[in-house]
Amino acid sequence: MQKIGKRLWVIAEGYIPPSSHGKAPQLTSHETACLLNTTEQPAQVEITLYFADREPVGPYRVTVPARRTRHVRFNDLDDPAPVPRDTDFASVIRADVPIVVQHSRLDSRQSELALMTTLAYSEG
Amino acid sequence: MQKIGKRLWVIAEGYIPPSSHGKAPQLTSHETACLLNTTEQPAQVEITLYFADREPVGPYRVTVPARRTRHVRFNDLDDPAPVPRDTDFASVIRADVPIVVQHSRLDSRQSELALMTTLAYSEG
Amino acid sequence: MQKIGKRLWVIAEGYIPPSSHGKAPQLTSHETACLLNTTEQPAQVEITLYFADREPVGPYRVTVPARRTRHVRFNDLDDPAPVPRDTDFASVIRADVPIVVQHSRLDSRQSELALMTTLAYSEG
Amino acid sequence: MQKIGKRLWVIAEGYIPPSSHGKAPQLTSHETACLLNTTEQPAQVEITLYFADREPVGPYRVTVPARRTRHVRFNDLDDPAPVPRDTDFASVIRADVPIVVQHSRLDSRQSELALMTTLAYSEG
Repeated sequence: MQKIGKRLWVIAEGYIPPSSHGKAPQLTSHETACLLNTTEQPAQVEITLYFADREPVGPYRVTVPARRTRHVRFNDLDDPAPVPRDTDFASVIRADVPIVVQHSRLDSRQSELALMTTLAYSEG
Repeated sequence: MQKIGKRLWVIAEGYIPPSSHGKAPQLTSHETACLLNTTEQPAQVEITLYFADREPVGPYRVTVPARRTRHVRFNDLDDPAPVPRDTDFASVIRADVPIVVQHSRLDSRQSELALMTTLAYSEG
Repeated sequence: MQKIGKRLWVIAEGYIPPSSHGKAPQLTSHETACLLNTTEQPAQVEITLYFADREPVGPYRVTVPARRTRHVRFNDLDDPAPVPRDTDFASVIRADVPIVVQHSRLDSRQSELALMTTLAYSEG
Repeated sequence: MQKIGKRLWVIAEGYIPPSSHGKAPQLTSHETACLLNTTEQPAQVEITLYFADREPVGPYRVTVPARRTRHVRFNDLDDPAPVPRDTDFASVIRADVPIVVQHSRLDSRQSELALMTTLAYSEG
């Protein structure tokens, strides 16, 4: 069984816009890490957040079942602490099996939404 | 003859917005995989879709002729099943010759469109 | 002298929107390949365009002087032929010295502009 | 202690839109390099800017403390010289420890903002 991806990923950009326009939850401003686990076992994922002016926070724990994708909104992470809005951060994502990670943001602070996405940085 | 690219690509982000504004088909909300085949033979491409809460679906089969690009809209894939709208997914793209894959979305749910793009993840 | 980059780059996505709103040339809809040559000699660059339904066209020839960047708008390429508007394409970019290539689009078909960018795919 | 990232990064696209709409500083048009230093020592970072028609300028010096991210707005760089607005540029980013770099732009020239982001190019 071929395993696709890497076990260490980094998203150096991170920011949850503090306001939104439009129907929730689809059009709520959000920051997302899209995780894909193509393997035959669940992926145990740990996300650590880095900030500009305080110690890193984490790990946040997420499970991606076998043969599933999970689009994790940073807005929804709350253990060990909610992710502050209107604050620059970055994230390091580690998994116990190979996964693929893509970063996206939807920003609806203004009446018309904006989008951005990129493949995350991987190692290993 | 140099062959450019890889035979395995992954797009971890996937989402077809459920509504659109503007002239069809150009301004219809769409999710696209842009495939480039620079080789001298047709590329037989298989796309498998992964979801959050159900088994993978596929393969969807697409041919990219020799020395051609094909910008595949996920909206148009319907065999073995249409791609659900307003639903998170991810895709694994395999080809029998090296290709290059870039991911783009046009979102026209609101009156002004938004765009995003990224190089896909590759292996092999 | 360290040489940064690669000599072969691919942008699998390509599309010049057929209309624009706003002040020219900044807000004219455009597709761009941003080229950076950090070396001490001029980079001779050849761009070949691939299409969905016709043979590749090129090479288009561009020079990036030593220690310079050049943001090439596909809109401006006209030898051996103008780049068709409202048409899917892809591009292969070869240089005689290492360069770095990033792809961007500004789409101002509607009254509010949209942007997208990605690092191009590289080999060699 | 694992060190994540690379010590040489390139952003071939660069442009600070010359005007903005909306609340400053969040909605001011800006070009950003998001830097993440996961190591246990400060990262001394040097940024050199390349232009289309003049010699490179730099290095601009930035420090990213240990276990911190810093989202550097090119708008704010002013030593050895401010970064010109409405001017194409590119940047080479070197650090004395491994870091990860992601590029983003917020363009608010028009009344609705646009966003773009990409992982930067890395070597070494």
